Amino acid sequence: MARKTWLGKHSPETVEPIPFESDPMADAPISIDVTHSEPYRKLLELAKTPLDLTQEGVLSTERVSGMRASACGFDLLYSTQQVDEPVLAALTALAGEARAVERFKMLMAGKVMNRIEGHESENRQVLHFASRNVFDDLPDPEPMPEAADAAGKAKAELAKLKEFLQRLESGALQNAKGEPFTDLVNVGIGGSDLGPKALYMALLPFRQGGRRVHYISNVDPDDAAQVLEGLDLSRTLVNVVSKSGTTLETLTNETLVRNAFTQAGLTPERHFLCVTGEGSPMDNPERYMSSFYMYDFIGGRYSATSMVGGVSLGFAVGYGQFTDILRGAREMDLNACGSEGTVNLSLLAALLGLWNRTFLGYPTVAVLPYSQALVRFAAHLQQLDMESNGKGIDREGRFVDYPTGPIVWGEPGTNGQHAFYQLIHQGTTVVPCEFIGMRQNQYGLDLTVEDTTSQQKLLANLLAQSIGLATGQRSGNPNKTFPGNRPNSVLIADRLTPRTLGALLAYFENKVAFQGLIWNVNSFDQEGVQLGKVLANQLIGHLAKGAGAGEEDDPVGWAMLRAAGAV
Amino acid sequence: MARKTWLGKHSPETVEPIPFESDPMADAPISIDVTHSEPYRKLLELAKTPLDLTQEGVLSTERVSGMRASACGFDLLYSTQQVDEPVLAALTALAGEARAVERFKMLMAGKVMNRIEGHESENRQVLHFASRNVFDDLPDPEPMPEAADAAGKAKAELAKLKEFLQRLESGALQNAKGEPFTDLVNVGIGGSDLGPKALYMALLPFRQGGRRVHYISNVDPDDAAQVLEGLDLSRTLVNVVSKSGTTLETLTNETLVRNAFTQAGLTPERHFLCVTGEGSPMDNPERYMSSFYMYDFIGGRYSATSMVGGVSLGFAVGYGQFTDILRGAREMDLNACGSEGTVNLSLLAALLGLWNRTFLGYPTVAVLPYSQALVRFAAHLQQLDMESNGKGIDREGRFVDYPTGPIVWGEPGTNGQHAFYQLIHQGTTVVPCEFIGMRQNQYGLDLTVEDTTSQQKLLANLLAQSIGLATGQRSGNPNKTFPGNRPNSVLIADRLTPRTLGALLAYFENKVAFQGLIWNVNSFDQEGVQLGKVLANQLIGHLAKGAGAGEEDDPVGWAMLRAAGAV
Repeated sequence: MARKTWLGKHSPETVEPIPFESDPMADAPISIDVTHSEPYRKLLELAKTPLDLTQEGVLSTERVSGMRASACGFDLLYSTQQVDEPVLAALTALAGEARAVERFKMLMAGKVMNRIEGHESENRQVLHFASRNVFDDLPDPEPMPEAADAAGKAKAELAKLKEFLQRLESGALQNAKGEPFTDLVNVGIGGSDLGPKALYMALLPFRQGGRRVHYISNVDPDDAAQVLEGLDLSRTLVNVVSKSGTTLETLTNETLVRNAFTQAGLTPERHFLCVTGEGSPMDNPERYMSSFYMYDFIGGRYSATSMVGGVSLGFAVGYGQFTDILRGAREMDLNACGSEGTVNLSLLAALLGLWNRTFLGYPTVAVLPYSQALVRFAAHLQQLDMESNGKGIDREGRFVDYPTGPIVWGEPGTNGQHAFYQLIHQGTTVVPCEFIGMRQNQYGLDLTVEDTTSQQKLLANLLAQSIGLATGQRSGNPNKTFPGNRPNSVLIADRLTPRTLGALLAYFENKVAFQGLIWNVNSFDQEGVQLGKVLANQLIGHLAKGAGAGEEDDPVGWAMLRAAGAV
Repeated sequence: MARKTWLGKHSPETVEPIPFESDPMADAPISIDVTHSEPYRKLLELAKTPLDLTQEGVLSTERVSGMRASACGFDLLYSTQQVDEPVLAALTALAGEARAVERFKMLMAGKVMNRIEGHESENRQVLHFASRNVFDDLPDPEPMPEAADAAGKAKAELAKLKEFLQRLESGALQNAKGEPFTDLVNVGIGGSDLGPKALYMALLPFRQGGRRVHYISNVDPDDAAQVLEGLDLSRTLVNVVSKSGTTLETLTNETLVRNAFTQAGLTPERHFLCVTGEGSPMDNPERYMSSFYMYDFIGGRYSATSMVGGVSLGFAVGYGQFTDILRGAREMDLNACGSEGTVNLSLLAALLGLWNRTFLGYPTVAVLPYSQALVRFAAHLQQLDMESNGKGIDREGRFVDYPTGPIVWGEPGTNGQHAFYQLIHQGTTVVPCEFIGMRQNQYGLDLTVEDTTSQQKLLANLLAQSIGLATGQRSGNPNKTFPGNRPNSVLIADRLTPRTLGALLAYFENKVAFQGLIWNVNSFDQEGVQLGKVLANQLIGHLAKGAGAGEEDDPVGWAMLRAAGAV
């Protein structure tokens, strides 16, 4: 009986395209400081007495059924957040002060918004949106020339990918012995690794012909060694991914892998592909049998829907299913542009997160997918969020005096329940939780044990945690006392398909963008990684030269190498 | 030239057994509140003006070389923590007030320290230490009857494991077709999964005969489906792990896996093993061809060195190398008991963590292994630490008014550098970092590119991060300004071997225990997971009965199921 209604009416296949409002090229300022606005002041005030979810009757059936927003096949349940009408109204007003949706549309329209006003910065557009603006049957903003140009580039690369994958399918592209390629090794790091890998892990049952992808990222030589062990290189493609074409780890690992091919008597040029910036040092047809391009206007952590994800994912799940990912992402992008009568799901999520982070002061957020397929998704979100909004200055270079991006972490449930949930329930630091769930499994292998399926048990656990964290539990035994008021929300869809996954990815990308716009930070650069690079190159130089050479110029670096036993 | 000194003199093979002090059965109180002590007051005072590592000359060569402690093949470099002599002296005095080492020895001696005074609690011993107290050539504490009894049990189980693995080796134990078993599927969750899996992933190149282990944990049926896909079940063993013999996820997954065996025409009883409590519902020789025991005095998250880890790890790396893990762990346990002239490495690490957490107020700690083999180690530590010290009451049931266990998270470097390090360097929340490094790789596959090996580049990156986080960088461009004073330490050994890994595991276990003793929390129970279990069973009951049944008893639960589209 439960079975009958289990599938519900929430099918992602029934998503209606969201009408795109006219005038995407709103002319809001690039930098808006909302910390002196009335809604901001109001929220600071409201945060002194947040809603107490542990009080009898507060988490009511009306509240649970009412605080539910739906778009693109997803439902967001947020009755277990410490928000009420005044808080939601003030948050909405804050988004208005920040002109969040207008500025989001300015991103999509190709304004140069990766910049810090008045200081040297990257000065780039933010057009990962264009990598999925490739569908004639979905609405398009007024054709801004910059965005249209980027979409044209995306379509051109997609056409190259389609042709490449067709050659693999048809047998036009085979190894030297005339056998099909069965494996692909992706060499990349950061955005060229985490996003594509997280999506690949999420789509294993959607693979075609048993194809496998392996990801090498770490400069630790054991990473490559472990991947190469047991691979039949003769039937393996290698995709090297670096926008700049100069990434230390990636070039080093490429050398290791090329060496393995040569030692196996194979010709690397018949196995190696690359994804890089046009004209980069890696853009060399003599070394790669195919080159795919990514562009300066796509940040690494936002590049999973570009060729950075396209090559390995297209190889694994096929061209059609890869474009299904793009379709889901595009639908969520359009939702984020807002429209009469629809809920802006990413913006709502952004505002709930802002409440927890900026006004209630919670330092972290746990992303807890109740879906084993999303086993590496939190690691991707960790990069996406922390590299985007882990910033200490605003869009005009002023050091901020409010908390920006939180620490993002998490592991799949129910596993986490048997691990770190102890602290979430009873620890001294409150951890807001973002649950993700699916109503159906992916593989279709399930059993009814004691009247419920595993999938039902999984979802029951998710919802139980949501309730328990909010309401807590009173007890005469302090060890059995749960303080509650652990804010959380539940994002749920029917089944994790390529399209659902694309929408999920864009939901988080756009949530991060909205939060960055309201915090008024530049979510699209990453200057914070530069110092480490410079110092690392300095120490690598010391190791290359050996002890004694130039010690007087960097006594501390040498002392550290000595203390570590590295020289 | 660098190569010549690369191996250094820090070999874990040269560890001297640490003399064990007499009188391990010190008679300290089980509960000691140090928050009113003089060192605690002093530390609160010192924390108002912590050492500024960004000042010219503070991070000196003397400091770097002097703040280095070594034991059991590991060196801990801590010059990049915000500590100076007065802080270290006060922390040491605080450990004295807490009688930390004495109480640690009481744990090892088998005192009933898993308890809350005056309240119903587990009332158990904490004797995971006994699972590695199995070496005649290593010192043993005065033979307390309780600890000796536990060690005896450990030896008995080890003997069973040895015999079992010998039967596999000799061919006495084979499948129905007379072929050797090549794969083992471990079914367990939480401590029965994370620790063993993290260690397995860390020892891949030490496997024997290409044996593979697969771990199924999540009640999500896709977890089992993905593992079973492509396995030759006829050559696969299954190890089911549950101390209570009643874990929902594990029993459900066992049923799924048994079903797959039956459908493949195989007899589960010729493939299934178990690790469970003696006399548990799973302790049934008719269902398992071998049963191994674990005991109430070993908590799940501390059980990797018991049979919980023993079966899958022994299968993978062989009996001898499994006992090498135990030896490393035992050596680190003995180090934690303290001794004249040696540094208590885990206690030092515990005190540095306490300074960051309790006195400087930092909410999280990032564990950042520069070793791809440790890819799941942070996930294990997350459970170990957060489930142990994520507590809100002290050992007498009083709600604490100081921060206890931090949020533990992390991913391997150099990967993290291209992901979340942006926030660590320039974000608004300070993240103390614990780096882990190795001087040599595991596989021996490495190349010199531009005069340095990958391993050297890896280590250079680690040390560069350590320096950069501490000192920061001044700049006229706020986007290139790094505030520094991001406290961190570096733990380093020669090579990740079974023995090194055992020591590393125990180092963190003991660090967690020391911190729990000083915070005066019970690090060995996990009452915080109970509420979720109760609520989940309630919702599972609703789903089993179907809509309409008993809705009046739990309207909110039903509302949540409806909002989620689960009914």
